[in-house]
Amino acid sequence: MGGDFAPANVVRGAVDALREQGGRITPILVGQEPRIRAELDRLSWNGKDGLEVVHASEVVEMHDSPNTALKAKKDSSIVVGVGLHRDRKGDAFVSAGNTGAVLSASTLILGRLKGVSRPTIGALFPTEGSPCFLVDAGANVDCKPRHLYEFGVMGSVYVSALVGKAEPTVGLLSIGEEDGKGNEVTMEAMEMFRKSRLNFIGNVEGRDILKGKVDVAVCDGFVGNILLKFGESVPGFLKSRLKEFAETGLWNKIRLLMAQGGLRAVLKKLDYQEYGGVPLLGVNGVSIIGHGGSTPKAIKNMILRAEEMVRWSINEKIQEAMGTHG
Amino acid sequence: MGGDFAPANVVRGAVDALREQGGRITPILVGQEPRIRAELDRLSWNGKDGLEVVHASEVVEMHDSPNTALKAKKDSSIVVGVGLHRDRKGDAFVSAGNTGAVLSASTLILGRLKGVSRPTIGALFPTEGSPCFLVDAGANVDCKPRHLYEFGVMGSVYVSALVGKAEPTVGLLSIGEEDGKGNEVTMEAMEMFRKSRLNFIGNVEGRDILKGKVDVAVCDGFVGNILLKFGESVPGFLKSRLKEFAETGLWNKIRLLMAQGGLRAVLKKLDYQEYGGVPLLGVNGVSIIGHGGSTPKAIKNMILRAEEMVRWSINEKIQEAMGTHG
Repeated sequence: MGGDFAPANVVRGAVDALREQGGRITPILVGQEPRIRAELDRLSWNGKDGLEVVHASEVVEMHDSPNTALKAKKDSSIVVGVGLHRDRKGDAFVSAGNTGAVLSASTLILGRLKGVSRPTIGALFPTEGSPCFLVDAGANVDCKPRHLYEFGVMGSVYVSALVGKAEPTVGLLSIGEEDGKGNEVTMEAMEMFRKSRLNFIGNVEGRDILKGKVDVAVCDGFVGNILLKFGESVPGFLKSRLKEFAETGLWNKIRLLMAQGGLRAVLKKLDYQEYGGVPLLGVNGVSIIGHGGSTPKAIKNMILRAEEMVRWSINEKIQEAMGTHG
Repeated sequence: MGGDFAPANVVRGAVDALREQGGRITPILVGQEPRIRAELDRLSWNGKDGLEVVHASEVVEMHDSPNTALKAKKDSSIVVGVGLHRDRKGDAFVSAGNTGAVLSASTLILGRLKGVSRPTIGALFPTEGSPCFLVDAGANVDCKPRHLYEFGVMGSVYVSALVGKAEPTVGLLSIGEEDGKGNEVTMEAMEMFRKSRLNFIGNVEGRDILKGKVDVAVCDGFVGNILLKFGESVPGFLKSRLKEFAETGLWNKIRLLMAQGGLRAVLKKLDYQEYGGVPLLGVNGVSIIGHGGSTPKAIKNMILRAEEMVRWSINEKIQEAMGTHG
């Protein structure tokens, strides 16, 4: 029931995932059953095969305070859905709802993996090469050096599975390349990274992300959230500027229309929808958090990504890495 | 002598500034005189009128540690140039050299304005409307709430003069719109901003910068530097993606070539060169710091901007505002 277009986009995304990968997944749609059934009817999905619906009467609104929501709305789709995952009636949980509430519910109800102080969310940025995983992307605002280090370990495991690299490069997002550049927290974290067995390449700068200089870029969630949202706003900015240019004359308009295919392809690279949501790493389960404005395509991608994470045994790998690196 | 293309680009930029605004400025070129003279000859500038050359034998290299450079290279173009400004033989100082060294030299040699704890640099971001001034853009990495507040006051004064708005809007860069969202430092700074006479609109998010939601966005220099460098890398990323698309076939190449004018115009909006350097606010003087890779055009713009800042009496205004807001 979460997100700006629920339940329509969520139901549609689940059905699309099922159509694409029916053999691998069985979506469990959690929420107000009559509304979910109505959406399934609209999609002409008879609902007998392939998916289940579990009723949850309450809805956590986007503006609800996460903690209040969890206490006051025990029959919300978020609390019920995460609970089903905890009881292993589902193998993963995916939501486009209130980010804070999904984070809190996943952390509290599923619990943390052994050795993990702070579960983290990471986001994929497009680059000139393979994507760069920015971690933490907003879950942990004030961090200690140890937390940054753990984000690096978890990020490395995730990216290793995602792109099939044995030892992804890990960098510490900072204000200069030299080890001595950074703030108090990153400079202390630097020492931990230098001593680790990670494929650590030192500091990386803001400009290195899109260049693809590193597979995993580590920062606190304050920096990560601001950077992620800034990046998400770039395609909209470019579109509005191109539109403005097109309005300067018919010939300019025609020229841009001709290039539209190329521009679309390029702007698409910057579009978060392609990647679906952001994975929550470090909890005892698989939880993916989507953008409130998730399209059906983003939802579908989140579901497929969740299935992959289960298949990769991501949590066993994280626990193993935390033990080795701890 | 600073920057990646010194003294060629610096001399060329100064001559271009002189050609454009000869009545208003008299550039003083500080550095190794024979090399500067050679550049002036190359530009067929006889050097009699309109500009001066002051010899300084040493060069602060881009990789020199700022503090060592200031102590060990007292006859560098940076130290000599800032000294000329302190002695009011020049009204402003502009450099594309080692950022840290220019910052330190300006702060130490010129001194701070009364009431300013930490001089700051700010950077202009393009938006859908008038530009957004991000402050601090990298001078102050670890900040206290009071510092953020001062950045807001100085930024407000600067933007007020720059775009001619009586009361520019000021926002605190954070991870959500509500007052309760932020890290420990921004949440404490929020209280100071709320009590101030600034036209403070509350928290702004990463996505609000390019949208132009606010005239001045306040953050610490760690966040600001990362965001600035990320933003600077966007045009290069887009160009490489467009090139890749063009290589997928002749027809695609032709289409993009036709749209080139529009694309250039749009990417230009994202290009820092248009704005020249970043102003250092809060020192007892006018100092502008350019990118190491500054083109002659960027240098020219920095010089013209410096002249404007002198004409605006920017420091009297900052001091007045610090007194009022203090």
